[in-house]
Amino acid sequence: MEANNHGMEPLRDGVRRGDEQSLLQSIEHLHPADAAEKLAQLTPQEVARCVEIIGAERALAVFEFLPFEIQKEALSFLGRETLGRLITLMRPDERADLVEELDESFRERLLSLLIQAERQNLLKLLTYPEDSAGAYMTTDYALLRAHTSVRQALDELRLQAPKKETIYYAYVVDAHRRLIGIVSLRDLIMARPDSLVDDIMYRNVISVHVDQDIEEVAQEMVHYDFLAMPVVDGEGRLVGIITYDDIFDVMTEAATEDMYLLANLDTDDKVTSSIPRSVKLRAPWLLVNLGTALVASYMVSLFSETISRFVVLASLMPLVAGLGGNAGTQSLTVVVRALALGEIKTKGTWKVVLRQAAVGWCNGALCGLVLALITYAWHRNVWLAGIMWMALILNMIVAGTLGALVPIALRKLKLDPALGSSIFVTAATDTGGYFFLLGLATLFLQEIVLHG
Amino acid sequence: MEANNHGMEPLRDGVRRGDEQSLLQSIEHLHPADAAEKLAQLTPQEVARCVEIIGAERALAVFEFLPFEIQKEALSFLGRETLGRLITLMRPDERADLVEELDESFRERLLSLLIQAERQNLLKLLTYPEDSAGAYMTTDYALLRAHTSVRQALDELRLQAPKKETIYYAYVVDAHRRLIGIVSLRDLIMARPDSLVDDIMYRNVISVHVDQDIEEVAQEMVHYDFLAMPVVDGEGRLVGIITYDDIFDVMTEAATEDMYLLANLDTDDKVTSSIPRSVKLRAPWLLVNLGTALVASYMVSLFSETISRFVVLASLMPLVAGLGGNAGTQSLTVVVRALALGEIKTKGTWKVVLRQAAVGWCNGALCGLVLALITYAWHRNVWLAGIMWMALILNMIVAGTLGALVPIALRKLKLDPALGSSIFVTAATDTGGYFFLLGLATLFLQEIVLHG
Repeated sequence: MEANNHGMEPLRDGVRRGDEQSLLQSIEHLHPADAAEKLAQLTPQEVARCVEIIGAERALAVFEFLPFEIQKEALSFLGRETLGRLITLMRPDERADLVEELDESFRERLLSLLIQAERQNLLKLLTYPEDSAGAYMTTDYALLRAHTSVRQALDELRLQAPKKETIYYAYVVDAHRRLIGIVSLRDLIMARPDSLVDDIMYRNVISVHVDQDIEEVAQEMVHYDFLAMPVVDGEGRLVGIITYDDIFDVMTEAATEDMYLLANLDTDDKVTSSIPRSVKLRAPWLLVNLGTALVASYMVSLFSETISRFVVLASLMPLVAGLGGNAGTQSLTVVVRALALGEIKTKGTWKVVLRQAAVGWCNGALCGLVLALITYAWHRNVWLAGIMWMALILNMIVAGTLGALVPIALRKLKLDPALGSSIFVTAATDTGGYFFLLGLATLFLQEIVLHG
Repeated sequence: MEANNHGMEPLRDGVRRGDEQSLLQSIEHLHPADAAEKLAQLTPQEVARCVEIIGAERALAVFEFLPFEIQKEALSFLGRETLGRLITLMRPDERADLVEELDESFRERLLSLLIQAERQNLLKLLTYPEDSAGAYMTTDYALLRAHTSVRQALDELRLQAPKKETIYYAYVVDAHRRLIGIVSLRDLIMARPDSLVDDIMYRNVISVHVDQDIEEVAQEMVHYDFLAMPVVDGEGRLVGIITYDDIFDVMTEAATEDMYLLANLDTDDKVTSSIPRSVKLRAPWLLVNLGTALVASYMVSLFSETISRFVVLASLMPLVAGLGGNAGTQSLTVVVRALALGEIKTKGTWKVVLRQAAVGWCNGALCGLVLALITYAWHRNVWLAGIMWMALILNMIVAGTLGALVPIALRKLKLDPALGSSIFVTAATDTGGYFFLLGLATLFLQEIVLHG
């Protein structure tokens, strides 16, 4: 942070004095991503002022790297003319993401500043559901016709370059805009100038549908190592492309989401969130957890007679429940991750569940033996030791089975496999652990007390 | 799976009959990544046979997409000549990753098949530590000199293209091979042909050091949206580049690793692992957990006198411990994720810990109130309700504090922030929960029993 604060004053000073030269000097030697980090420390009003001073054209690259929150607030301080130019120059996907965040009235105002074609395009992009390919794609892709020569194609790409997100892949469409081929810039510059695009283009085009889930698209792009993925509509017409940097963001968000759901957290919760906000976001999950913990608590209360006759059981309860919880979380995490990476096919699900159950059984037998030995050393009670062993095996089988079954079932229900699954699995291993231990102890109470 | 199995027979048949044409027919219309998926269902011996039949040159792209395990096993079935050609043609980074997996003797044999320069290069790549930029980079990057004209530069790239991983960025070095500029193919084709690379190249080059941690490199590439990142040695000499597709893999692995560590899992554990293997990988973690659970268990045993006088406490124990564990996991996950994404700066750590402690305190007060009301409704004991409230608040403060402190401390010790942290935090919230509840109950035993 220190390194960033250093050199903030000239920037702020430049904004205050409206000094174009000193403003440019403090950001132009930086990569736009770094300049944006610096700018993000100004107030939105100062950011807007900065855009006004250096002009929308030169501010654009930096502006697109600013966090949405700041972009959004800064917009409202911009003059009509600069606002119009900035929003027109923005990349269509960035623009749509931003406009989506705005209030209705401000959105209307922005739309009125765009020319007809851009407005149509923006309204179209806004209709795609949040996690679909359509919501992430850009409509600024390079287009070629099949019967263009390579020489002409390169000339066309040269002309298209300033407006396109990437020209490293160019897409070939027919008269109905249906995607029929792809050609890379690498292939174009390696080809003979008088050959046709048609001769060198790759025809077995892999594309995704505009409604496809973006995490699936990410999986595909990772599978193929694609730099960009074409997006088509129901008729096979090219409507956009998704580039590798979009996938960087999708992968980061998807990983955060899975980790957060496994820990019962809302994705808006950050280390930087205000205390009231974090409290508000976490409380509902904790209250759900309170509900499931009450079930476990009630289970114990059913056996208070047994516990009062042999109080050592109260201290052994956490062992069976805790180890079961841990084993359940292990199975759960392996399965959730495999589902997220598309490693579990529909046909193999039962095998996955059985395997996790078997792993639970084996580790229950193994750790249960250690636990039984410790219990015996501690309480010199062979019946108690045996019951601990048995209870742990049973609870670990529950842990492995549910750890695999719950996320797979959630996926079948078209829900996120990690959603609430850890609360459910832990509730089951807690309740199960108490039930197996105290139930067995009640059955063999005579023997335990006799040997106690 | 079905779609893949379909069409397997012609492939297997082609291998058996050594029929080049039918083999090519069953894979050449596929993207290499898909062809590799199909090939991966053959035995390594069949894969090797397939490479022999169609030749190393045509097999190369598909071979590089095969899982390491299969690549490794298939190699040993290849004839000397095909092996030599295949290993020579492979991309240097892929080759190094593969050779690293081989036994010493086979590695020697492979090295003897390479020409001197390639062998040096390979041996050099093998010296970089596992998670460093050096271990992921490729040495096949496009090089240009500053005083080349744009026309010449394009000609050079055309020549370099077949051998280079990417030509979309070209790197400009001085006579000492020090990196002095970058130029994109996009800028080159847009520039006037007679201008110099020196005039259009970008000079404020962002690069990473060859020893830098690959996850940090990934963070940088995501920050800048880079398609490729140059890697330099201690003297600023260019030694390689890391491309976006390497980062896809790094991000996937890093996310898996963090999730796995939070769930106490070894990264080699998969849904497809054999049962004995999963058991072996999970057992050590479960035994560590058994150790920490024994501490909690011992804590309860210290209060057996209190429990035997008021057995309801045994059924309330899981509530305080369970909610604390959940709150601890929430704080832990938020902090581990923020550390992984580089969102916590060294200076702000205390603020992060205090904030999580405060969130714990607030949610303890809130959920504790609900818990107290439920306890009162259930047991009609106002003292017991009050003790539950107080115990939960105290345990939630422990949860928030340790949830933040443990990963931050691990990072300070240069360990992975998620390593064992969930076992430690849960042990603390279990032990703490029992201590607070049973301790307070012992202090106020008179009052509880009187109102019970």
